[in-house]
Amino acid sequence: MKKYIVEFIGTFFLVLTVACTAILMPGNPLTPLAIGSALMVMIYAGGHISGGHYNPAVTLGVWLRGRCDTRDVVPYVLAQIIGAAFAIFCAKALYPAAAAGLAALDAAQIKAGAAVANSVVPVILSEFLFTFALVYVVLNVATAKRNAGTGFYGLAIGFTVLVGAVAVGGISGGAFNPAVAVGVSLLKSAGVLTFATVWQHLAGEILAAIVAGGLFRALNADDK
Amino acid sequence: MKKYIVEFIGTFFLVLTVACTAILMPGNPLTPLAIGSALMVMIYAGGHISGGHYNPAVTLGVWLRGRCDTRDVVPYVLAQIIGAAFAIFCAKALYPAAAAGLAALDAAQIKAGAAVANSVVPVILSEFLFTFALVYVVLNVATAKRNAGTGFYGLAIGFTVLVGAVAVGGISGGAFNPAVAVGVSLLKSAGVLTFATVWQHLAGEILAAIVAGGLFRALNADDK
Amino acid sequence: MKKYIVEFIGTFFLVLTVACTAILMPGNPLTPLAIGSALMVMIYAGGHISGGHYNPAVTLGVWLRGRCDTRDVVPYVLAQIIGAAFAIFCAKALYPAAAAGLAALDAAQIKAGAAVANSVVPVILSEFLFTFALVYVVLNVATAKRNAGTGFYGLAIGFTVLVGAVAVGGISGGAFNPAVAVGVSLLKSAGVLTFATVWQHLAGEILAAIVAGGLFRALNADDK
Amino acid sequence: MKKYIVEFIGTFFLVLTVACTAILMPGNPLTPLAIGSALMVMIYAGGHISGGHYNPAVTLGVWLRGRCDTRDVVPYVLAQIIGAAFAIFCAKALYPAAAAGLAALDAAQIKAGAAVANSVVPVILSEFLFTFALVYVVLNVATAKRNAGTGFYGLAIGFTVLVGAVAVGGISGGAFNPAVAVGVSLLKSAGVLTFATVWQHLAGEILAAIVAGGLFRALNADDK
Repeated sequence: MKKYIVEFIGTFFLVLTVACTAILMPGNPLTPLAIGSALMVMIYAGGHISGGHYNPAVTLGVWLRGRCDTRDVVPYVLAQIIGAAFAIFCAKALYPAAAAGLAALDAAQIKAGAAVANSVVPVILSEFLFTFALVYVVLNVATAKRNAGTGFYGLAIGFTVLVGAVAVGGISGGAFNPAVAVGVSLLKSAGVLTFATVWQHLAGEILAAIVAGGLFRALNADDK
Repeated sequence: MKKYIVEFIGTFFLVLTVACTAILMPGNPLTPLAIGSALMVMIYAGGHISGGHYNPAVTLGVWLRGRCDTRDVVPYVLAQIIGAAFAIFCAKALYPAAAAGLAALDAAQIKAGAAVANSVVPVILSEFLFTFALVYVVLNVATAKRNAGTGFYGLAIGFTVLVGAVAVGGISGGAFNPAVAVGVSLLKSAGVLTFATVWQHLAGEILAAIVAGGLFRALNADDK
Repeated sequence: MKKYIVEFIGTFFLVLTVACTAILMPGNPLTPLAIGSALMVMIYAGGHISGGHYNPAVTLGVWLRGRCDTRDVVPYVLAQIIGAAFAIFCAKALYPAAAAGLAALDAAQIKAGAAVANSVVPVILSEFLFTFALVYVVLNVATAKRNAGTGFYGLAIGFTVLVGAVAVGGISGGAFNPAVAVGVSLLKSAGVLTFATVWQHLAGEILAAIVAGGLFRALNADDK
Repeated sequence: MKKYIVEFIGTFFLVLTVACTAILMPGNPLTPLAIGSALMVMIYAGGHISGGHYNPAVTLGVWLRGRCDTRDVVPYVLAQIIGAAFAIFCAKALYPAAAAGLAALDAAQIKAGAAVANSVVPVILSEFLFTFALVYVVLNVATAKRNAGTGFYGLAIGFTVLVGAVAVGGISGGAFNPAVAVGVSLLKSAGVLTFATVWQHLAGEILAAIVAGGLFRALNADDK
């Protein structure tokens, strides 16, 4: 139970940061640094209890690598999704005017906004590439035996999200995380990540986790 | 006595940085990074002597967790508040023109500015959420047995403040620290944090420290 | 073979980040931080398998210092160059409009752009100085015996590129890496780094690696 | 001799970064991060050989604390000043147009610029406060016995300069280092740091080093 609470808290603060910056108060140049740092600090705070996934794609990759109990997978993902949904609820309470502005968008505006921004192949490719990078980094820095006892894992994982957010945030929004994607899709918005198109994110992210998990096993055959 | 001097110095430089950037010279996009880094470097410099709190809410949370002597609590908080007040004094000497501009605001302007910016529930919620995150991170990275000997504690704690400053700095000013809140309230300003409204910050911060301290004990029952 | 795959992946994400930010979507102030962080996270992820070079100049310097098998040099460089080329291919798929804009430049425009920006001595000097800094940092933080077991190597190496990108990125583009230089030169662009002038980058970078490798041996005569 | 070469190289790259960003190409918001990171990476690269001072004020503070041989003090300071002067020479070669622009300023323009920017008390106070912070951080993170073996020293020291550069860079230029101050004063400029006023920087910096060295001894009486 402790592990699930830690996954809830960490995902909550990650999605709260995404919602309060990229979605509700866009324009701050430090937004990618804040999002990457939110993930970093929550990994350092909770890693010793839950492993600090905060991301269903990471949970999937870690499970494929053999470092997450099968019985933990569903509770972890549920804790992450519930944390994301609660973060959206709090973000609306923090920025009521901005949230009301998004809620006032009508269906045509959302469709138009998404149509401009959204091009299916680049969105899926963006989410695939940087979710792959994220899970590849997680498995190597946090689960490889030769990196046990080192202290850089949170910095490496958090800043991978910073890199992706700067490199392709303008294409897909830069979720690299099904809990973030689902959470953000709960907010009506005219951007790249809407309820109608969130399947693109999920497809790229889940595929990436499977590829990264398989690759780790191939590259570290001696590290079970 | 050494511990109190270290708490004084660390809080002094944290509040000096806040005052010289966010309050007196706003507009630098690196301000949240500078504030988070000020906390980080002072934690690394003084942690081995005083624990590196620099924040009455952290002192409260660490005391609840059982890692701060009861007789140290009041002197720590006093050293922090005196450090904050002295930082405001120095910041005025560094930026005399900007400080004089703030001092020339009359009561009506301050009230008008605060009325526009300030909405009680979002302010208290902002301070509650990110002070909770801060104390939660501190207790886990700096006092949990399983993280003893690691070197990432300053980075994790300092960058938690960076995250909060970017995410909700526009709502509450992003203090997450009663010493910062009191210090800034000593400067006349038309922003979100004034002497008349500082109770909102203190209420959110103190409640957060109590919740985070209690939660740590529940999540780490075997780590006394 | 595992080592070559890791070098391919790391160089791929480094060059992908450079192409998606500095070349195809310029103007984000966090670009140098994203590029330095891309190198940092890939070093932390792959260092335990391949050493985390991702840069032919680093491979040359590490070989001169005696920490890279002679039979690995050519495969490492090939994996790096192929990773860079594949990154350019993916970057074009991610930003098709921006890539098409560059492709539409005619020879006269490229020549004019390069002529304005490019001044041979500053370009070669920029690439020499910061590639020297990069290889000097790599050899000291990642191969010196007295730094064995420390965890800051990725941070130090990645942020050296950040420093160079801010300091001289406007002169040479800030490659400090033959794989980055060759990769970027495959994109038609009117900037400082074109196929016609990439020899300037390669000359500065290779010379820097030789000087840094020789200097390390002189400064650490007791560390074979 | 090795130690002096390392001090030369580190100070060279620190001052080169300052000159290429803050002085010759102002306006990049990441400038304070680049300068702090230049110091950080050079400390990580050279700390195991020379201690990584790159700053006469640090050398003075470390000597007062008893961790720098008396016979090394003068050669260290000379290596630092020569490194700074050579960095200015290279910076002029990298940015010839910007350097020529500064060189074309006549005495009246420099005096007028300095008169506007420069107010003696804030300049000396800025340099005193953040050089004190820098030497205080250095002595605690890099020379205190209880922090031996940790890896955060470069991050803590480098980012102290970032904090000072954001907080008071607009007042004094943010040198906190006699080698930086002397180096920059060799460039004609109309800013806060000119050859005529560099004594203000040196006074604040040297006083700060003495105070920080004495305080460390008082706070760590058991750590000789």
